[in-house]
Amino acid sequence: MTSPRKRDSLEADVVVASGDEGLAEQQQEKYLATHADRTIRTILLLVAMEAEAMPMVQSLGLSADDPAVIPPPAPCHSFSGEHAGAQVHLVCFGKCKATGVDNVGTVPAALTAYLAIQAFKPNIVISTGTAGGFRSRGASIADIFVSTAMVNHDRRIPIPGFDKYGVGAFDAVPTPHLQQALGLKAGVVTSGNSLDYTAEDMARMVEHEAAVKEMEAAAVAWSADLFGCPVFCLKSVTDIVDGDRPAQEEFLENLHKAAEALQHTVPRVVEFIAGRRLSEL
Amino acid sequence: MTSPRKRDSLEADVVVASGDEGLAEQQQEKYLATHADRTIRTILLLVAMEAEAMPMVQSLGLSADDPAVIPPPAPCHSFSGEHAGAQVHLVCFGKCKATGVDNVGTVPAALTAYLAIQAFKPNIVISTGTAGGFRSRGASIADIFVSTAMVNHDRRIPIPGFDKYGVGAFDAVPTPHLQQALGLKAGVVTSGNSLDYTAEDMARMVEHEAAVKEMEAAAVAWSADLFGCPVFCLKSVTDIVDGDRPAQEEFLENLHKAAEALQHTVPRVVEFIAGRRLSEL
Repeated sequence: MTSPRKRDSLEADVVVASGDEGLAEQQQEKYLATHADRTIRTILLLVAMEAEAMPMVQSLGLSADDPAVIPPPAPCHSFSGEHAGAQVHLVCFGKCKATGVDNVGTVPAALTAYLAIQAFKPNIVISTGTAGGFRSRGASIADIFVSTAMVNHDRRIPIPGFDKYGVGAFDAVPTPHLQQALGLKAGVVTSGNSLDYTAEDMARMVEHEAAVKEMEAAAVAWSADLFGCPVFCLKSVTDIVDGDRPAQEEFLENLHKAAEALQHTVPRVVEFIAGRRLSEL
Repeated sequence: MTSPRKRDSLEADVVVASGDEGLAEQQQEKYLATHADRTIRTILLLVAMEAEAMPMVQSLGLSADDPAVIPPPAPCHSFSGEHAGAQVHLVCFGKCKATGVDNVGTVPAALTAYLAIQAFKPNIVISTGTAGGFRSRGASIADIFVSTAMVNHDRRIPIPGFDKYGVGAFDAVPTPHLQQALGLKAGVVTSGNSLDYTAEDMARMVEHEAAVKEMEAAAVAWSADLFGCPVFCLKSVTDIVDGDRPAQEEFLENLHKAAEALQHTVPRVVEFIAGRRLSEL
């Protein structure tokens, strides 16, 4: 399904996910040159699903905000409080009026991220929630991964310039110390609007060396980038993408377990990053 | 690639696009019961690409707004003026900083639609621009189609409730008189984040009886629905989806011709709808 032309057009973007240490270092240096001296005092957590969000709201001791903070008709809900000396805001994407399910996917993710960054002016955005993990990149159920980059795997636009825009790759803020201190795995997070994947999606996920597959991170990164706001992901694994079971079965079975892992880890992450400079993560 | 379960889960949504006159009438009646008495005085046109937008800006005699109307860092650009006695606003999605190409696709579409509806409080939103057309539904190059409904063809979430949310079907405001007066074709507009399509995408497009394939309308409809704002699409055909040439070749070849067709037709549409009630379209 992937034409030679399409593969060519992706090559430039694969750099983000490649093992080329020289380039990765250059990117990290460039990133830190812009942001390194910022101290983290305000943290924004973005979470698609209420079932993922509420345990975190509880473990961080946050309270529901006045709805006017992000005014209607935005469907999202925000919670705020102080944790480890930082202002912490958690915003979940709200429910679809027609179906009652959570507003998952890149469209509500981009809108929620934009409105929440506008409202809370955070020093850092963390896109967090559950995801699929690649066994070939070391993922097991309920592992928590930190992102090194965010890309899209379902936006194919084979016209020069648009091809790269479609991939929409963004670097995550580098977090080597955080990963080491909390024993977190790290890798590329890839986003698409489907819980399953096509052969075409998989070809791109493999090409981008994706460790984690979910439905929001690249759109959160797009909105955060508009504001020049640093971003990384914390994703807890509900299902194995390169395993032999359908994602929806494993997802529903492990959602609770993966949400519990986040409930435990997200407060530790907030405690680690609060008051540090970006260059110290 | 489409499992029986997925096909089942889509059946409820196909109603939107079906030829079942009784149900279509019920939907139209329900729609008009809510909106019929609104008179159209403020019209918002949403256009992804600058090359599509500028000829319309010119033919409608619009001027660039102060950037503070939709403040940065929103990447979109807005133009306003009066045409046929209505306030007309046209907003295009702006450019990607990293690549310089237009911000196409559902993510910028949803954000731009949300911010533009918030800023301009239109009585009606028109998602307009170029698109692929299905020959099997009567499409030829540079035809202009009016939407009857908007759906997504690349959001597969095979979990009850989420399946329907993924399709994300919205009715367009009914426009029988407009179609007749201007000799416009009509059909379902289907959105996805790729210029090409996979076998899975095509199965869904056929299932939804799509006449037009593009990359923004369903996301515009999602944001408009949050505000309870009526919406329809005007899409000019650059390429034949069920033809034998790659979309990107035909798209680039016919972009100018399709944009010219819009430049001619969009002012006629504004003149027809300005000052009418929604029930008179």
